[in-house]
Amino acid sequence: MRVIDVITVNIKDYMQDLGIKARTAGKEVAVASTQDKNAALLATRDAIGDMRAMLLDANAEDMERAREKQLEPALMDRLELTDSRVRAMMDGLSQVATLKDPVGAISGLSYMPSGIQVGQMRVPLGVIGIIYESRPNVTVEAASVALKSGNATILRGGSEAISSNRAIAQCMAQGLSVAGLPAGALQVVETTDRAAVGELITMSEFVDVIVPRGGRGLIERISRESCIPVIKHLDGICHVYIDDAADAEKAIAIAVNAKTQRYGTCNTMETLLIAESVAETLLPPICSAYLDKNVEIRGCERTRELCNQASVAADEDWAAEYLAPIVAIRVVSGMDEAMEHIERWGSSHTDAIVTENHTRAMQFLRAVDSSSVMVNASTRFADGFEYGLGAEVGISTDKLHARGPVGLDGLTSQKYVVLGDGHIRS
Amino acid sequence: MRVIDVITVNIKDYMQDLGIKARTAGKEVAVASTQDKNAALLATRDAIGDMRAMLLDANAEDMERAREKQLEPALMDRLELTDSRVRAMMDGLSQVATLKDPVGAISGLSYMPSGIQVGQMRVPLGVIGIIYESRPNVTVEAASVALKSGNATILRGGSEAISSNRAIAQCMAQGLSVAGLPAGALQVVETTDRAAVGELITMSEFVDVIVPRGGRGLIERISRESCIPVIKHLDGICHVYIDDAADAEKAIAIAVNAKTQRYGTCNTMETLLIAESVAETLLPPICSAYLDKNVEIRGCERTRELCNQASVAADEDWAAEYLAPIVAIRVVSGMDEAMEHIERWGSSHTDAIVTENHTRAMQFLRAVDSSSVMVNASTRFADGFEYGLGAEVGISTDKLHARGPVGLDGLTSQKYVVLGDGHIRS
Repeated sequence: MRVIDVITVNIKDYMQDLGIKARTAGKEVAVASTQDKNAALLATRDAIGDMRAMLLDANAEDMERAREKQLEPALMDRLELTDSRVRAMMDGLSQVATLKDPVGAISGLSYMPSGIQVGQMRVPLGVIGIIYESRPNVTVEAASVALKSGNATILRGGSEAISSNRAIAQCMAQGLSVAGLPAGALQVVETTDRAAVGELITMSEFVDVIVPRGGRGLIERISRESCIPVIKHLDGICHVYIDDAADAEKAIAIAVNAKTQRYGTCNTMETLLIAESVAETLLPPICSAYLDKNVEIRGCERTRELCNQASVAADEDWAAEYLAPIVAIRVVSGMDEAMEHIERWGSSHTDAIVTENHTRAMQFLRAVDSSSVMVNASTRFADGFEYGLGAEVGISTDKLHARGPVGLDGLTSQKYVVLGDGHIRS
Repeated sequence: MRVIDVITVNIKDYMQDLGIKARTAGKEVAVASTQDKNAALLATRDAIGDMRAMLLDANAEDMERAREKQLEPALMDRLELTDSRVRAMMDGLSQVATLKDPVGAISGLSYMPSGIQVGQMRVPLGVIGIIYESRPNVTVEAASVALKSGNATILRGGSEAISSNRAIAQCMAQGLSVAGLPAGALQVVETTDRAAVGELITMSEFVDVIVPRGGRGLIERISRESCIPVIKHLDGICHVYIDDAADAEKAIAIAVNAKTQRYGTCNTMETLLIAESVAETLLPPICSAYLDKNVEIRGCERTRELCNQASVAADEDWAAEYLAPIVAIRVVSGMDEAMEHIERWGSSHTDAIVTENHTRAMQFLRAVDSSSVMVNASTRFADGFEYGLGAEVGISTDKLHARGPVGLDGLTSQKYVVLGDGHIRS
C-alpha cells in the first residue's frame, strides 16, 4: 500500500466531516445487535490476518521515517509492529468479541410505591475521541472496546505511526463493511496536522468523551484545552505499606514483585513504606533482592542504617514516578503515618497494605483514596485484564464517572427506564 | 439575628480558606460513621426547630430587601420561607437520615483466575460546590444529601437569600457540632460578591464537582467557566408519544397528567406526539381536557384539523420548554417518525411511549437516548423521590457519571478493592 496523498482540505472542515459521520454512525452502532458488533470485530481480525504483509510494509515506512528523524529507541520500539504484535492485535479482537455485551443490560428494576417499575439501562456514551502516541496496536485495542460498547470512535494516533494507522483503518473499514455496520463507526484521522487534535477536543456537538493515552504532557495539555469531558490517566506513584502485622514471606514477595516485575508500567510500586517494628527484620532481605536485580535504593535515614547501599531520598523521590529500576523506601511509625505519606505524595492510582491484621486492612481499604486499594497483593494487579474487564481503553485517575481500569462499562452510562401500566402522578 | 457584617477580606483568600477547610473536613466525613452522619442530620433538624423564629426573621429581612428591589413575584415565592416549608426542610433531614449509607458498600467482589478477589467500593467524591438561586430550602436539601454520602459541601446561594442562608448555616453548624463532625463539612458562602462564584468554580484543588441548580443561564455560564466537572441540568423538553397500539384510556390519562399535573417542572411534557391512525379518536378528548384546564394548544396541520382551537405550531414550539400551560401537538406517521422528532427537538431529559405493543415498547426503551425513558407512564415520574432515591441534589442531563435524578449514589464514585493472600503477578 502507498501512503494516501496528504490531506489538503481545511482541517476544520475535515474534522467536522469526521464528526458528523461518527455522530450518525454512533446512533446506528448504539442499537446494533451483539451479533453484528462481534461479526465486525472478527472480520477486522481476519482482515488484519489477510493484509498482514501490507500492514507490516506500512509500518516499515513509519519505522524508516522514524529512523531518519532519529526518534528515541523507546519510541521506536513502541512504534514497531512485529509478527507477534500483529498476532496479539488479532487475539485481542477475538477476545473482545467473546465479552458480554454491556449495552441494553437493565439493572435494579424494582416496583416503587406508586406502582411504576424503575431500573437503569446501560447505554453507549456516543462518540469517543481517542488520542494516543505512536503505538499502532493501541488503535485496534481501543477501537474494539469502543465498538463492542456501542460507541463510534475517532482515533488520532501519533504522526510517526500514520502509515500503520492508515493500514489498520483499512482493516477496520473492511470489518465494519462485512458486518453491515457504517464505516463512520471507526474512523482514523488521516492527517498528521496537529490542528486536528485541537478540533477533535473542541467539537462537543460530535464527540462525547476524549480518552488520551500517552505521556503526562499530552494528557495535561488535552485536559486543559478540551471542552469535552476527558477520561484521564495521570501519574502512577504507587505505594506498598508493610504493616507491623505483616506476614514476612508475603511482605517480601509483594515488595519485590510490585517493584521489579516490570519497571515501566503505571502500576509499578515507586515507594515502599515499612513499619518501624518490622523494618530491621524485613528491610535487609528486601533490599538485597532489589540489589540483586540492580534496583537503585533511595531511603530515609533509618533505611540507610539498615541498608548501607541506599542513597539519600529527598522530597523529589517521594513525588517521583521513576518508571525505572529505582525504589524509594521510608520507615514509618505505623499505618497512620503510612496513610499520611500516601495522601501527601501519592497520585491516587494504586496503593497496597501488607498485613494480617483484619481491622487495619479494612481501615486502609476504606480510607485510602486511590482508584485501586489492595490488601496483601502486588500493585501490579491494577489492570483491566487482571480485574476481569477483558479489555481496557486505559486507567482513569479521575474521580467522576470511571475510576481505575476503564473497560466496556466505562464507555457506557446508565439511563433510567420506567415501566408503567397507564400510571399517572397524583 | 442580625446580618453578619459584610465580608471585607479579599474574596480569593476568603474562598481559598473555605476550600482548605472543606478539603480537610471532607477527609473526616469521608470516613465518618453512618451513626455520626445521621446524628448531624437529626441535630440540624432539631436546630431548625429550635431556631425557627430566628430563621423566619432572617427570611423576612430577605423578603423585605427583595420587595424593595421589586423582585419578580415568582422569585419572591421561591425565596419565602413559610412554616410549612420549614417543616418540609425538617422532614427532609429526617428522611435523609433514614436512607441507607452508600459509602463503603462493596459490590461485585469476585475471585479472578490469578486468585485475587476484585470488587468495587463506593466512596465519596470529596468536596461538592453547590450553586443555586434564591431558594433557601435547597440549602438544606442539597447539603444533607452531600453529607450523608460522605462529602463536604460549599454552598453558594443567590444573594437575595443571604440572611436566610446565614441563619440556616448556623443550624447546620450546630448539627455538625452536636455530632462531633468538623464545621468545615458544610459551609455557606457568606458574601454576596459575585466573584465568589468565579473562585468556587476554578479552585479545582479544593472542589471535586460543581452542582448548579437554577435557570439555564446560570448553568450554561457555570459550565462554560468552570474548570471543575459540572453535574448539569439543562432543558426538559419532554415528549409523550401515543402509539398506534396505545390503550385509549391510558393514553388520555398520561397525555393529560404529563402536561397538566404541574406546569413549571422540568419533567412536564411539552410536546405530545400521536400516531396518525389513532389521532382522530384520541386527539379530540385530549384537546378538550387541555382546553378545560385552559391549556393553550399549538399544533401541526393535522392537529388543527382535529382541534379547531389549536393555533399553528412553528419550529420554535418543538424546541420550547414552555414551563407554562401551553402544549405543542404533532401527528406523526408512527413510532419511527416520533423517535426522529424526539431526537431532533428533544433535550434528552424524559420521553415516554404509550403502547400495548411489546416489541415497539422495547425498541423505544432501547433507542431513545434520554436520561429517563418510559413506557405507559407519565413523564412527571422522573424524579428522585419517585425513583426511590429518597432525596436528590438535582437531575443530570449529562451522559458521563450521573444521568437523570442524582441522589446519594450520584455523589459517590467507585474505587477498586483487591484482596489477596500474598498474591504476586507472574
